[in-house]
Amino acid sequence: MDGTARLAPERQSPISALRARFHSVRAFSLALAGNLSDADASAQSMPDASPVKWHLAHTTWFFEAFVLRNRSRYHLFDTRFPFLFNSYYEAEGARIARASRGLLTRPSLDEIYSYRAHVDEAVEQALDDLPSEAAAVIELGCHHEQQHQELIFTDILHLFAQNPLAPAVWRSTRAADAGASPPMRWMEGRQGPIEIGHDGAGFAFDCEGPRHRQWVQPHMLASRLVTNGEWRAFIDDGGYGNAGLWLSDGWAWVRQNAIEAPLYWRRADGGEWAHQFGLSGLTTIASAEPVRQISYYEADAFARWAGARLPTEAEWESAAEALDPSDGTFADVAEAVRPRPARSRPGLTQMFGDLWEWTGSAFLPYPGFRAAPGAVGEYNGKFMSGQFVLRGGSCATPRGHVRASYRNFFYPHQRWQFIGLRLAKDN
Amino acid sequence: MDGTARLAPERQSPISALRARFHSVRAFSLALAGNLSDADASAQSMPDASPVKWHLAHTTWFFEAFVLRNRSRYHLFDTRFPFLFNSYYEAEGARIARASRGLLTRPSLDEIYSYRAHVDEAVEQALDDLPSEAAAVIELGCHHEQQHQELIFTDILHLFAQNPLAPAVWRSTRAADAGASPPMRWMEGRQGPIEIGHDGAGFAFDCEGPRHRQWVQPHMLASRLVTNGEWRAFIDDGGYGNAGLWLSDGWAWVRQNAIEAPLYWRRADGGEWAHQFGLSGLTTIASAEPVRQISYYEADAFARWAGARLPTEAEWESAAEALDPSDGTFADVAEAVRPRPARSRPGLTQMFGDLWEWTGSAFLPYPGFRAAPGAVGEYNGKFMSGQFVLRGGSCATPRGHVRASYRNFFYPHQRWQFIGLRLAKDN
Amino acid sequence: MDGTARLAPERQSPISALRARFHSVRAFSLALAGNLSDADASAQSMPDASPVKWHLAHTTWFFEAFVLRNRSRYHLFDTRFPFLFNSYYEAEGARIARASRGLLTRPSLDEIYSYRAHVDEAVEQALDDLPSEAAAVIELGCHHEQQHQELIFTDILHLFAQNPLAPAVWRSTRAADAGASPPMRWMEGRQGPIEIGHDGAGFAFDCEGPRHRQWVQPHMLASRLVTNGEWRAFIDDGGYGNAGLWLSDGWAWVRQNAIEAPLYWRRADGGEWAHQFGLSGLTTIASAEPVRQISYYEADAFARWAGARLPTEAEWESAAEALDPSDGTFADVAEAVRPRPARSRPGLTQMFGDLWEWTGSAFLPYPGFRAAPGAVGEYNGKFMSGQFVLRGGSCATPRGHVRASYRNFFYPHQRWQFIGLRLAKDN
Amino acid sequence: MDGTARLAPERQSPISALRARFHSVRAFSLALAGNLSDADASAQSMPDASPVKWHLAHTTWFFEAFVLRNRSRYHLFDTRFPFLFNSYYEAEGARIARASRGLLTRPSLDEIYSYRAHVDEAVEQALDDLPSEAAAVIELGCHHEQQHQELIFTDILHLFAQNPLAPAVWRSTRAADAGASPPMRWMEGRQGPIEIGHDGAGFAFDCEGPRHRQWVQPHMLASRLVTNGEWRAFIDDGGYGNAGLWLSDGWAWVRQNAIEAPLYWRRADGGEWAHQFGLSGLTTIASAEPVRQISYYEADAFARWAGARLPTEAEWESAAEALDPSDGTFADVAEAVRPRPARSRPGLTQMFGDLWEWTGSAFLPYPGFRAAPGAVGEYNGKFMSGQFVLRGGSCATPRGHVRASYRNFFYPHQRWQFIGLRLAKDN
Repeated sequence: MDGTARLAPERQSPISALRARFHSVRAFSLALAGNLSDADASAQSMPDASPVKWHLAHTTWFFEAFVLRNRSRYHLFDTRFPFLFNSYYEAEGARIARASRGLLTRPSLDEIYSYRAHVDEAVEQALDDLPSEAAAVIELGCHHEQQHQELIFTDILHLFAQNPLAPAVWRSTRAADAGASPPMRWMEGRQGPIEIGHDGAGFAFDCEGPRHRQWVQPHMLASRLVTNGEWRAFIDDGGYGNAGLWLSDGWAWVRQNAIEAPLYWRRADGGEWAHQFGLSGLTTIASAEPVRQISYYEADAFARWAGARLPTEAEWESAAEALDPSDGTFADVAEAVRPRPARSRPGLTQMFGDLWEWTGSAFLPYPGFRAAPGAVGEYNGKFMSGQFVLRGGSCATPRGHVRASYRNFFYPHQRWQFIGLRLAKDN
Repeated sequence: MDGTARLAPERQSPISALRARFHSVRAFSLALAGNLSDADASAQSMPDASPVKWHLAHTTWFFEAFVLRNRSRYHLFDTRFPFLFNSYYEAEGARIARASRGLLTRPSLDEIYSYRAHVDEAVEQALDDLPSEAAAVIELGCHHEQQHQELIFTDILHLFAQNPLAPAVWRSTRAADAGASPPMRWMEGRQGPIEIGHDGAGFAFDCEGPRHRQWVQPHMLASRLVTNGEWRAFIDDGGYGNAGLWLSDGWAWVRQNAIEAPLYWRRADGGEWAHQFGLSGLTTIASAEPVRQISYYEADAFARWAGARLPTEAEWESAAEALDPSDGTFADVAEAVRPRPARSRPGLTQMFGDLWEWTGSAFLPYPGFRAAPGAVGEYNGKFMSGQFVLRGGSCATPRGHVRASYRNFFYPHQRWQFIGLRLAKDN
Repeated sequence: MDGTARLAPERQSPISALRARFHSVRAFSLALAGNLSDADASAQSMPDASPVKWHLAHTTWFFEAFVLRNRSRYHLFDTRFPFLFNSYYEAEGARIARASRGLLTRPSLDEIYSYRAHVDEAVEQALDDLPSEAAAVIELGCHHEQQHQELIFTDILHLFAQNPLAPAVWRSTRAADAGASPPMRWMEGRQGPIEIGHDGAGFAFDCEGPRHRQWVQPHMLASRLVTNGEWRAFIDDGGYGNAGLWLSDGWAWVRQNAIEAPLYWRRADGGEWAHQFGLSGLTTIASAEPVRQISYYEADAFARWAGARLPTEAEWESAAEALDPSDGTFADVAEAVRPRPARSRPGLTQMFGDLWEWTGSAFLPYPGFRAAPGAVGEYNGKFMSGQFVLRGGSCATPRGHVRASYRNFFYPHQRWQFIGLRLAKDN
Repeated sequence: MDGTARLAPERQSPISALRARFHSVRAFSLALAGNLSDADASAQSMPDASPVKWHLAHTTWFFEAFVLRNRSRYHLFDTRFPFLFNSYYEAEGARIARASRGLLTRPSLDEIYSYRAHVDEAVEQALDDLPSEAAAVIELGCHHEQQHQELIFTDILHLFAQNPLAPAVWRSTRAADAGASPPMRWMEGRQGPIEIGHDGAGFAFDCEGPRHRQWVQPHMLASRLVTNGEWRAFIDDGGYGNAGLWLSDGWAWVRQNAIEAPLYWRRADGGEWAHQFGLSGLTTIASAEPVRQISYYEADAFARWAGARLPTEAEWESAAEALDPSDGTFADVAEAVRPRPARSRPGLTQMFGDLWEWTGSAFLPYPGFRAAPGAVGEYNGKFMSGQFVLRGGSCATPRGHVRASYRNFFYPHQRWQFIGLRLAKDN
């Protein structure tokens, strides 16, 4: 998810529910920034990431541009903001270069808060007499903002990870998990002609549909995510130095960037991998927790090392449809989120929440896919080259945001998100 | 096809047939270099391309490394050559940096010819008492060399295209095609559960199998390739300047490289696109000929502009299985190959030969895919990220080399091969 | 001046004077940051520039490292700060990569203020019983901090110049200068064997000495700096497009960066150069004001266009020795400094203050130069390649900081400082 | 010397002498290419170097463009050649990108030989009735070609150094020097007001004048060049790892490029520096030979380590004026040139020939310098930023080419020329 909306036709909520939802989503964004200084919220640690202040403003611009702008009596908060806070909507005109977002020390965080309040109030008033089309866009805007909430978690984490002081965004409210993880079991998946994709009932982004048939081969899925302990075994076995395990592009990436562990693992003075950096600062690497912040290249190499492979998105989705997408480790409050060890229980665990799971499927259009018209439709379709699909949401995803058909996507070298992996194999 | 073998278990030819095939393949490589000077054969115009001399030596090294090296009584022609002429086989040890191949002005082209003769003679002798496993590797080596023959065509073309003198490799033996192309017709494709992939009868590279079932949606395929004339209409309509038509990565590529036409189109003094550079030098752009040397990004944008899309590889293969893969415009002799206008006849035309066709499918493993063991198995599997599949062969492919299940692959920005496109659409 | 101290042995002030000077210098740095938010003070707009917060901390670290650290009873404010706020003193150990300074959103600006207070208090106490060597270092530290004060002006200006909102650091307290500048007159310079360089009386950086003899040819110096109006004539005459006027490196720089005017000139909607960005935001380009923020390449090309050349540092210094180095347009208070039009009076004007003046002399050691020993000696000597000398100070230099022998230096492409030019010619 | 002419007004030779000189210079270029294949002569190993074929053609183009082109009855050999073989004369129009010269496999080396013959014959005929101005340009062209002859030596050496086969251009005709070098003595230099620069008698490039006075401080010059043995002591003492010895830019260059020895030193299998690559291939590093192929950064660091410094160009020239500039180790024939150990004799040795000597002087205009008018005048003046002066010529310089006033210049990181160093110190 490259930092913006992926929108699709959806069914409308009654206005009162929509109003409540709008309130709650908008409030959570503010909560996420609660511990941040103006400086924290303004810095950009790499071109892939954006300043928190920019996320707060861009999600607000979305409502202004697509809901409010054309209403009589609405006045833009600041006529220069569209240039600053449009993300990549070509149809919406020129915009500041992505890599320069971190130089916008003005407007200040406080001014962005005022911008948010101005737009919130206008949306609120608009809700009183809203055409159904606009209500749909507001719902889209809420989903869009939830995507950016996840990016706020991951982008601020990336920024703080560059700081030699290793500052914590939040004190952790959870003790370290010292226990063992339950053994990995192989669960048989569904096979033959299977339907996947969103069927149009309830909200979904356009790339999740149309629902269509795929033929799935016999296979098995691992009952849980791969753990830090298992990853350590991969490292100890020389996994990062064994060219035979890696995709060609992956091996070049490993060599060029001197990759030797997940993104936020840190060595102790003795040289061993002892700590990992997270939203609560540096903590011990807990063996039972799922390994996180890994690239597709790493996930793929690990799977090959383990004699397995990554699941396809059809395999994953056909298994996930039977599960409750709201049940799992999600972001419910503004805190130092992190995944939890798998629970010992039958069936597939950790499918929703905890960590996004790399699939072996490229992010491509489903048969019959049509992008939505207009600027609001520059969302998913134009990213359909070079990226892989991830499924299931993470501990940084707001609860209720994902579903079985939800398709996230990143380039194979990207790993600053809360990403892990689940193994699969042919049956 | 990144310049090397993609090998798979295959059935064995009788020795006499194998001997004849080996002779003929080896001779064709020499013919391709016939018009080139030592300097021509030594230069490298970009990291993606290799010097012709390197192709001639690398294909020879393949036989030396995988057939001859471990035979008693065989002496390496030169112990330093493996370092120079290994391409990317990690298991085969260190090798010269790919981008530095053009600095190897020694050994000379004549020395490479001696190397070839030395190895040819040794293979010949070996054929007298060859274990069946080695015979299989020789057949692989022939297919491998044919792949490099296509690269010789395309890499020397790319080199000469950098030369302001616009030199011709060969005088053209074919008059310019001034006629019109037959109108494009939409042909209904096969749908439902369909099997694709190589079934194991005859030679194939490992990535072509295993044969497996896919569910294909109702669709139609264009009866012929897109022409230069149609591409000109795309340009005239502002296609290269309309962000809405492009993938996000494609648009960035267009802007960064100031792309405004296919790779080898050249403007006349008046500014209009009048000529295209080819193996016979500069010629007039013939409207009826299929457009060539385009990237995936361009193909995809054109298809969107035309209200269509690219075919998937299953759609393409299921349609191609009924056709004769040896019937088409292929490379039979060393000459200035180029594609031909489509013929007016019923059914699909130009499926085999003429130009490789971009599909909308990412190059990924088929269900159940297993890479071959050993160094000889570093062929296809390790390239399975970030690339798209192309089908059907081209005018630069040796006749008989491709089949319906053949999968070529390139990154979406690459376009120096003989690549075109065929449209598809949902039905 | 690459952002840090250039120190040399100097004579000691009486302690009370030193105490007063320390107070006043430290207070001015705080005043400079008075209008800045934490975010403003944390951002870094390019590798050549540093965040204001970093300047405030680095100048403080200087006193901590070279005056306080080894005193009994002194406790480091934070043991991690030396890593963060050392600039380039190799002898002082590892330090954060220069280009990453902008990611240090923590410690906050407030924490840096506490750091300053902590060190100020400790220096104050130390002044009571200070060995003379340490007093010398404190004086050095004051000069060092004044250099960074100039960089605070220029670095925050560069940051704000990247912001499409064109924010002002300070409201201007000075009306626009609409008048004409006095005509440029040629003043005969001193010739023959002439002594230049610091003679050891009073403070100077090591690179200013030793005093030595040079043979100066007959020449003339312009009575004032080149103006915006004169620069506009250069532009109108096609100066930026005429290769014959430029050094080879300069022409490459112009082409690669599409340079067509001084750094902060901005076009109006009609396309003409109408505004320039400064510390008070966008203002009209005043013809009579000296042109500023130009590279050596531009200064050199302008001089060639004007049939003149740049002065050597010996020519400049021998003319400046007769003048009062405290008389001119300097930075006395924290405000939107900018240069003033030349005054109509006899003799050389604008020699001190207003703008640094590019000389045609490379920054190299004077005969007999010796760098000071120890870490404090990594100041000037190690920058003696590839840079040119600038003379005279600017409107952003604290009054009293420069002298006739003062040597500033920058690479020929750098131009974000308050830099202008004065013409010279052979007589 | 960036690969081209630096011309100045000069006095004319009688026509017969000029004819003989033209013959001999032109013949030597051909001799230099005698052992090279078309491929060798066409490749370009880095942007700083040019293909030998290009040197052969560019020096020919010089005569065609500046002597022949405007004569009635002269026909350009090929109208496309000026675009290919102009080097950097902006006034002469567009030209091929410097870094792409290695892609010009056509015209072939044989065609360039024909080009040379064509131009030689036309110059010959022109000599019969030559205006004196044209005779001057021919003499310039001879000096220009001699500069390129040195570049042919160094550029082909650089190309072959990239080849893992370590090919020799020529078999060495000289045994290895196993002896010791005479001890280095300090020789007192001239001081006070001294004149340097060319006085106009005989040929010189424009940047060598005008002759002018400089004031030189008391100093001493080393009697000979620094040797390989002394350089080995610098390495053994950790010189490449001691930041305190290096200029700031030099240290960055060392770190970024992992520099740890002179350009062509090679380690033996045991890890020690045992061999150096040269025009005769790999040979043992002879301790008594002067160290060669070092950058300014290295020379400067070595001098600091040795408690000395580099000489200024005035120090060097004032000492050299008493010596015979034709006496020394120069390039007399086409062979594997290399410097010789110093001889045991009184006075300064190795001043002319053997190796260019870095001075501590930036390449800047002398007082009163004026560049020559017209295209032929784009020679030296435009390179006067960022480079340092070298003096004395080398074993790859044609004998008779240099003089005491001769100023060569390179950027401080460049080291592929035959460059060494001589120490100096204050007295």
